[in-house]
Amino acid sequence: MRILGIDCGTERTGYGVIDSDGVRHLLVAAGTIRTNPRDAMATRLLRIAQGLREVIAAHAPQRASVEEVFHAANAQSALKLAQVRGVALLVSAEAGLAVSEHSALEVKKSVVGHGHAAKEQVQFMMKSLLGEATPVHLPDACDALAVAVCEATRARFESLGLNKAAVRA
Amino acid sequence: MRILGIDCGTERTGYGVIDSDGVRHLLVAAGTIRTNPRDAMATRLLRIAQGLREVIAAHAPQRASVEEVFHAANAQSALKLAQVRGVALLVSAEAGLAVSEHSALEVKKSVVGHGHAAKEQVQFMMKSLLGEATPVHLPDACDALAVAVCEATRARFESLGLNKAAVRA
Repeated sequence: MRILGIDCGTERTGYGVIDSDGVRHLLVAAGTIRTNPRDAMATRLLRIAQGLREVIAAHAPQRASVEEVFHAANAQSALKLAQVRGVALLVSAEAGLAVSEHSALEVKKSVVGHGHAAKEQVQFMMKSLLGEATPVHLPDACDALAVAVCEATRARFESLGLNKAAVRA
Repeated sequence: MRILGIDCGTERTGYGVIDSDGVRHLLVAAGTIRTNPRDAMATRLLRIAQGLREVIAAHAPQRASVEEVFHAANAQSALKLAQVRGVALLVSAEAGLAVSEHSALEVKKSVVGHGHAAKEQVQFMMKSLLGEATPVHLPDACDALAVAVCEATRARFESLGLNKAAVRA
């Protein structure tokens, strides 16, 4: 199964595409969509939507998974991030992908084994799961790959008849 | 000038289209795009995007104006609303419209004359500005029309060489 993970951001939106059976994961593509902070928000959202559409057209994933917006310390930042997230969900649904959402806690638990892992631990695990080509120097792309791995694991558990609560436990 | 005002909501997104020279305003169309609360957020955003695209295709506005998301008492509701707002900004930008944003305070100040007007005062003023056909029974459509009138007034002040600060004062 081919999965697109998306890590939303107003300046940098990370994307990561993997092929996975839920146990073994293969890196297909990963990168960052950048926007110009001087542009109006509508222009930046347009850039992000175009970038994500290009990724979907190039790699044809079957599923998309987006990280949930946490309660940021800065409410204004969280609201801007949520706008990007709305665009990511829309573009994925428009392309006919099955769309899921995962919290940062779920992603870390799925990749590292516990929900309070440091960024470096996530990057280390992503490299050991996906190999040396994993772009750990691009934190947003690496986070997006982690979201994709989380979704791959969840989808496998679901296909085995185990529900999300069981996965979380 | 033809202006589309959008009042974002996860359940009901209001839209209102007016023709205006910044002084006289003519009602073109107004209504509500509804989504099913049982649907996933991605599906609901897709429905809102389709609805807005239909409105833009049918009435060909030159500008769009979207109400800014306020700090809601409920942070989760504000984040959901911001996702809808991201979609409204994207769809407007994709259609090549000039996109602006106005706070609820600006909208009320522009329509009623002060920023803390009650909903009923806004509805009363919209009826006197746009005539008997104004759908005051559809609060979201009426709010969207108020956003459009606010943008029409701002655009006129701008064309007269007065900046936004002067309009606000």
